[in-house]
Amino acid sequence: TIDPERFRETFERYSEIGRTDADGLHRLALSEEDREVRDRFVSDLEDLGLEVRIDRIGNTFGRAEGTDPDAEPVLVGSHLDSQPYGGRFDGQLGVLTALETLRTFDDEGVDHRRPIEIVNWTNEEGSRFKPALMGSGAFTGELDLEEVLEHADADGVTVAEALEEIGYRGEAPAEPREPYHSALELHVEQGPKLEDQGLSVGVVEGVFGMAWLEVVVHGDADHAGPSPMYSRKDALVAASDVVGAVRRLSNRLADDVVTTVGELEVEPGSINVIPSEVRFTVDVRSYDDAVVGDLVEAVEREVEAACEREGVEYDLEEIWRIPHTEFSPLVAETALAAADDVGASHRAMVSGAGHDASYVNEITDTAMLFVPSVDGKTHNEAEFTEWADAEAGARVYAETVERLANA
Amino acid sequence: TIDPERFRETFERYSEIGRTDADGLHRLALSEEDREVRDRFVSDLEDLGLEVRIDRIGNTFGRAEGTDPDAEPVLVGSHLDSQPYGGRFDGQLGVLTALETLRTFDDEGVDHRRPIEIVNWTNEEGSRFKPALMGSGAFTGELDLEEVLEHADADGVTVAEALEEIGYRGEAPAEPREPYHSALELHVEQGPKLEDQGLSVGVVEGVFGMAWLEVVVHGDADHAGPSPMYSRKDALVAASDVVGAVRRLSNRLADDVVTTVGELEVEPGSINVIPSEVRFTVDVRSYDDAVVGDLVEAVEREVEAACEREGVEYDLEEIWRIPHTEFSPLVAETALAAADDVGASHRAMVSGAGHDASYVNEITDTAMLFVPSVDGKTHNEAEFTEWADAEAGARVYAETVERLANA
Ligand SMILES: NC(=O)NCCC(=O)O
Ligand SMILES: NC(=O)NCCC(=O)O
Repeated sequence: TIDPERFRETFERYSEIGRTDADGLHRLALSEEDREVRDRFVSDLEDLGLEVRIDRIGNTFGRAEGTDPDAEPVLVGSHLDSQPYGGRFDGQLGVLTALETLRTFDDEGVDHRRPIEIVNWTNEEGSRFKPALMGSGAFTGELDLEEVLEHADADGVTVAEALEEIGYRGEAPAEPREPYHSALELHVEQGPKLEDQGLSVGVVEGVFGMAWLEVVVHGDADHAGPSPMYSRKDALVAASDVVGAVRRLSNRLADDVVTTVGELEVEPGSINVIPSEVRFTVDVRSYDDAVVGDLVEAVEREVEAACEREGVEYDLEEIWRIPHTEFSPLVAETALAAADDVGASHRAMVSGAGHDASYVNEITDTAMLFVPSVDGKTHNEAEFTEWADAEAGARVYAETVERLANA
Repeated sequence: TIDPERFRETFERYSEIGRTDADGLHRLALSEEDREVRDRFVSDLEDLGLEVRIDRIGNTFGRAEGTDPDAEPVLVGSHLDSQPYGGRFDGQLGVLTALETLRTFDDEGVDHRRPIEIVNWTNEEGSRFKPALMGSGAFTGELDLEEVLEHADADGVTVAEALEEIGYRGEAPAEPREPYHSALELHVEQGPKLEDQGLSVGVVEGVFGMAWLEVVVHGDADHAGPSPMYSRKDALVAASDVVGAVRRLSNRLADDVVTTVGELEVEPGSINVIPSEVRFTVDVRSYDDAVVGDLVEAVEREVEAACEREGVEYDLEEIWRIPHTEFSPLVAETALAAADDVGASHRAMVSGAGHDASYVNEITDTAMLFVPSVDGKTHNEAEFTEWADAEAGARVYAETVERLANA
């Protein structure tokens, strides 16, 4: 059994790195704060006697050998980057639950036949650099490594440059050294379902499909006073029409549809100037991949119609699409049985948030555990998970990993 | 008569300071570029033997004494600051037309009984620091000097600090030294009317009333995936509703109504995060002050309704209101007669753009001259005025100033 005090102390220590005034976390991928937390993680892995490996996209692994040198390893872990002014639990809790599991095995001499690899994936959030799940996507071959290394943030800094800057451009190939046996990731739910039902643990059997679009509307700057309304080409009027249309698409086509415009930037952004250019993003999701496809087409039609009404031009690019995931029944059943045996209240569920585990599922049998988010709140400094739930999750996690590592 | 070559050369020389790649002008109020163009202006005034005076808000005056030491002076000039990525004519052309007029009087020994004061007003545009017409507003007592000195830009730099930084925090009181006889400002039209009618000069008899609002919508950040639609408080959905409503208010209540949302900023601005906060501005105008009042109330109702629909909070502040201006018939008639005599095609008109002349009109008899804007385009790098029209305007301007200065 895990050591609740050590677990919590470690969590508090990691939470200091990039902590915000409102007790959230601002630790964007490949930032100075990310470097600092990665250094801490590497030093904790070394203290545990693990062999540390950093790959070309900065994914950081620690390997605990098993008793059977020929057995395929089990992969555990999550991500340490955060959203801008995000929460302390998103990602970090999964890495530290995996770390606590390995510390417990080491402390208590828990035998495991298979090697166990713990990982911190690079840029899960997709906020500073798009797309999300970048490290796991490159590692599993689902994203093109050389291409994503050249993706730039808003200041034009590329992933490759940022990795270099923080000293995490590793030399190990960004690919598995050998086939894995299985993988398990713990994460906060980031939604309200577990809390609504008063449960401590979710066994995640699938993840929504999702698509990200980037739209740039090209209007024409002019004066807010003497420019007659009939002559205007206002990029913001067209973009705002699309924001409303995207909202109206939610819960259409299927019950589970969610649609969001999260970024929107206006040029030149002067109070008495008609906006000449607006760049915005659209995020659409459903468990049904065909519905995601229909949503993308519906957004395209709305952009076209709004821009035609206003007489403005636009560019539209689909910058990311990931189909829905069906996790491994083998791993999910192992986790459900472990939750039963540990005595944690639980249910099976699917995730509306994307996770590195989706890409990992492409190369090995994978599933996830969720612990509840208070009020369902996440990507917000107020994100919170009750410690009793975090501990219950860690107990189920350690038990499941032990079973997988000896299977 | 003015010297067209000198006039144009001077214009080109000033246009180099803050020139953009697309031949526009980026010379925000109290920026480094503004300092540079002010230095050039002061040196040109000194070369002309004028007495230079800088007041506490940075308004910069040059005084040419008249033949009658007791006569009230005539005030000429405009502004040298620009919009972000704006045009070369907006403001600058008026200052340089006044300068060319004084150079011509000096060169040709044109007698003027009254002193003539040329001015470059601080922060006409209101883009970096709000509100617009700041220098003339403080100088005429229509804005509170001490209050506007504390207004901050987006980086938190105050007007007072920025003046200090560029060395233009003058010591002269920001108020008239003596009563003026009259004032005349030339500006580009920034609208399509003169061009549509094929005229070279407009004699401006009035300016629209206008109001500026700033709205902050407070939503709640959450994850674009697992957050059910029913639970969202999306600040951008509410703000976009208002952008559409503001557009629908245009040309309502009166034929001449114009309405614009020019600034809109989204926090935290991450593709997979529901927007927690949106700050945006609203600009409403009409020649009828009662209509401006009704527009402000209509916008307030729309903000309230949109925020209630989305379940979000908001703050709304009216940050500027200026009533419509009726310029001096005396000065307008002098200008109309001068235009007739010079043989420039012209009409009387009103302005949808705000001008320093509106505040100046509160303390002395004032009017304006307009020259056409190609395609009506302004606040845009492509802003342009044909040189023949600029010259015609300058000839009418010089003739009008001579008559006023000897009246
Ligand atoms: N869990 C999480 O926040 N993932 C980021 C990718 C997404 O937007 O779902
Ligand atoms: N002329 C001009 O651009 N003035 C700025 C104030 C306004 O917005 O009308």
